[in-house]
Amino acid sequence: MNILVIGTGAIGSFYGALLAKTGHCVSVVSRSDYETVKAKGIRIRSATLGDYTFRPAAVVRSAAELETKPDCTLLCIKVVEGADRVGLLRDAVAPDTGIVLISNGIDIEPEVAAAFPDNEVISGLAFIGVTRTAPGEIWHQAYGRLMLGNYPGGVSERVKTLAAAFEEAGIDGIATENITTARWQKCVWNAAFNPLSVLSGGLDTLDILSTQEGFVRAIMQEIRAVAAANGHPLPEDIVEKNVASTYKMPPYKTSMLVDFEAGQPMETEVILGNAVRAGRRTRVAIPHLESVYALMKLLELRTSKSLWGNPP
Amino acid sequence: MNILVIGTGAIGSFYGALLAKTGHCVSVVSRSDYETVKAKGIRIRSATLGDYTFRPAAVVRSAAELETKPDCTLLCIKVVEGADRVGLLRDAVAPDTGIVLISNGIDIEPEVAAAFPDNEVISGLAFIGVTRTAPGEIWHQAYGRLMLGNYPGGVSERVKTLAAAFEEAGIDGIATENITTARWQKCVWNAAFNPLSVLSGGLDTLDILSTQEGFVRAIMQEIRAVAAANGHPLPEDIVEKNVASTYKMPPYKTSMLVDFEAGQPMETEVILGNAVRAGRRTRVAIPHLESVYALMKLLELRTSKSLWGNPP
Repeated sequence: MNILVIGTGAIGSFYGALLAKTGHCVSVVSRSDYETVKAKGIRIRSATLGDYTFRPAAVVRSAAELETKPDCTLLCIKVVEGADRVGLLRDAVAPDTGIVLISNGIDIEPEVAAAFPDNEVISGLAFIGVTRTAPGEIWHQAYGRLMLGNYPGGVSERVKTLAAAFEEAGIDGIATENITTARWQKCVWNAAFNPLSVLSGGLDTLDILSTQEGFVRAIMQEIRAVAAANGHPLPEDIVEKNVASTYKMPPYKTSMLVDFEAGQPMETEVILGNAVRAGRRTRVAIPHLESVYALMKLLELRTSKSLWGNPP
Repeated sequence: MNILVIGTGAIGSFYGALLAKTGHCVSVVSRSDYETVKAKGIRIRSATLGDYTFRPAAVVRSAAELETKPDCTLLCIKVVEGADRVGLLRDAVAPDTGIVLISNGIDIEPEVAAAFPDNEVISGLAFIGVTRTAPGEIWHQAYGRLMLGNYPGGVSERVKTLAAAFEEAGIDGIATENITTARWQKCVWNAAFNPLSVLSGGLDTLDILSTQEGFVRAIMQEIRAVAAANGHPLPEDIVEKNVASTYKMPPYKTSMLVDFEAGQPMETEVILGNAVRAGRRTRVAIPHLESVYALMKLLELRTSKSLWGNPP
């Protein structure tokens, strides 16, 4: 397939490289890293897959520069305030282009699906430890599983082809009939550990869990209740399993904390805000989520004031 | 009366100076500021009461140095981890010495009352904007009201004498039959704004209230519910009044935020922890308070790790 990856951060670079490895023709839209990627490609160091230099078929600053539209466009950017996803996709899709959204959070698809009502929308969820260490340099530390499914549900031939390509490239490429439920499932962990790592001023997962397990569980249970009320019942033991597996993980610094410390926008709205709104809509009691969300919004307000040179 | 003030921070210096002004014989225990206070006394700049230099009858490092025990000992230190209040009082009281505790929070009296079962314990609650700007230098910006009452209830002759002295010195000195209820009443405001100012990374009261009024109200309502369940029903409109008066105040930086920014221990346990424990004991639903308390404990853990040179 002709594939376009928008975004040469950690996620876009890593998954784009895997598709190129399996023989697909992969081009990239790179904005801030354009010069480096154009000149040298993208160097991937991987703890599990070896090293690889990904040389895209084309490197452009904007999809408008491309002569032909791709069969598939992977949008690999964080869904944060100011990210103009529809604008980025506008020149990147023909009517028969599949749009693949790979990012964290809940309800990340409706905006794109509404803007491109005739396109196939594929929703992707990555379970991976990968970092962009410099322009055009990616460090893949661990994991890599990518779940893919049509939005709001189902598995098309295109989803199967993509999942098979990722599987061939050496990671778990999973086609799932219900990607929306999978998003809620991942949110159970994300909604607890991401904001708590930031609001605590920078604790890792083990410090959080071992000192405030009850609080972590309360947040996870509320996500489970909201998911169920929104048509996505999750396994009864999901909180138990998340707690147990987090105790077994090495102490982990969340992606939201990495963004916060780097002064980057955080995925507060898609991880926490959308879950809170779904809870409000369905009148689920979510006082712990509401508290954490309110505090994240206060912290973001404080951060924005610092950026604008107006501390209290 | 012969009065001993333990602590020459903002509170001890200010209220000690007022008692000296009205003719009482006031000595002080000063630890970190001993040299300055011994040499020069304490200089009070006041926005409402004029300037005044308070020259204590005696300045000592420890109450053990005093030849006679005072009629009244005012303990004016923050109730934070590591504050050995009983140890500080041990040499400062005879059987007939009245012990006056001036500090923030809920349930600050039981430990002292248990250690000195035969002494009169007077509990004091200050409504004041006052700061120690340097050793022996105090800046009184606004307010000054001091509520005094016997613990757990009642008004003794000694309470009346003290309240009258403060009134004579130019502030509101109020003797109250029920100081414990007054503490819960003050806690309505404190439990909301103090931790939120810290967890937000440094917002003032107006930023917090104008963007997260619902969250502030939820915390305040939970304090009211806990107070009621613990035998201290508060006025029905107390939340409304706190919200309205905070909107009218100039934007205010809370004392807990001042402590946090200065790297000082915070009054988390007496303002928030004791309220949470009272709520748990009486099985009141306090999910917002539990959330804020858990986050404050995480932040304190993070801070302690930084202090010990062990960031994650």
